[in-house]
Amino acid sequence: MEHQHRPGYSGAKDAHQRRLRRVEGQVRGLQRMVDEDAYCIDVLTQVSAATKALQAFALELLEEHLASCVVDAAREGDEAAAVKVREAADAIARLVRS
Amino acid sequence: MEHQHRPGYSGAKDAHQRRLRRVEGQVRGLQRMVDEDAYCIDVLTQVSAATKALQAFALELLEEHLASCVVDAAREGDEAAAVKVREAADAIARLVRS
Amino acid sequence: MEHQHRPGYSGAKDAHQRRLRRVEGQVRGLQRMVDEDAYCIDVLTQVSAATKALQAFALELLEEHLASCVVDAAREGDEAAAVKVREAADAIARLVRS
Amino acid sequence: MEHQHRPGYSGAKDAHQRRLRRVEGQVRGLQRMVDEDAYCIDVLTQVSAATKALQAFALELLEEHLASCVVDAAREGDEAAAVKVREAADAIARLVRS
Repeated sequence: MEHQHRPGYSGAKDAHQRRLRRVEGQVRGLQRMVDEDAYCIDVLTQVSAATKALQAFALELLEEHLASCVVDAAREGDEAAAVKVREAADAIARLVRS
Repeated sequence: MEHQHRPGYSGAKDAHQRRLRRVEGQVRGLQRMVDEDAYCIDVLTQVSAATKALQAFALELLEEHLASCVVDAAREGDEAAAVKVREAADAIARLVRS
Repeated sequence: MEHQHRPGYSGAKDAHQRRLRRVEGQVRGLQRMVDEDAYCIDVLTQVSAATKALQAFALELLEEHLASCVVDAAREGDEAAAVKVREAADAIARLVRS
Repeated sequence: MEHQHRPGYSGAKDAHQRRLRRVEGQVRGLQRMVDEDAYCIDVLTQVSAATKALQAFALELLEEHLASCVVDAAREGDEAAAVKVREAADAIARLVRS
């Protein structure tokens, strides 16, 4: 999965890492809650928070991807554009359905 | 958030912890991918997998909550039932919208 | 699909019908927009509005179902409760995933 | 909201209209079900089907939009690209959250 080009998100790497460490903290918090027999509804609230944080990360990544890889492909030619649009559309479908 | 009663999920605690550790692994995998400039679409695929795993955890927890806390409350009386149903419905709404 | 008992939502039938007629209006609005070559983004905004309205309807219906059918089943006995909880959990999973 | 250019989906208008008429039929089916006191869970199943159909419509529309309007904007210049990418990203966020 390595790539010769720098990905579209490379300018925002620090912000992404901070966000992902926060999500990791939320997931560890969930483990602690389950361990301490926390109330189901409180656990569910924390799951929703972690899911929302992951989603926000995905939406930012996607915008950066459109702004860089898809725009670049559009300028490269019709075939490159079609490949990247299809790939982005599939990723969006997975996000919407997850 | 501690609770005098054992929560509805206490019989499945080990399974829940295993699942949450797997989600934690996925989130750390995301950090590694961002660190190594992985391709945006591959990162997004991994985000969808983590989100789906969190959702599956939430759905199991919710079923256990209905089967224990909500059923118990229903047998306790109308007021207890109304409180627990409302609380569960709010948690479901947060899940559906996240 | 007919049922000998009145469903949990029977007290709110008028509100549900009003809401569903509004969703029907939104879907007809979508047809008009497509017919008139409306801008894709405007069509997508209207799709999100219709989806949200359907979801709000589903969440209300579900709460009424928990408050009536599931609570009644809980009082009927363990087996009835288990059947209704499982069925509700499956419906919630379909909602969360749709 | 009218537009001087033909929208990205103009080649697929008939397919979209057929799909939307099917969604309209599903929403009318929901009204009938509520009217006839159908079982809550059956109503919820039909809501999930209608929501999924709307989502599938939105995802197709979005792909067509990326393939036409966003690709065209990318070729027009950086500013046009930035505007269209931002607009598409906002629409995707609304879809993911609805």
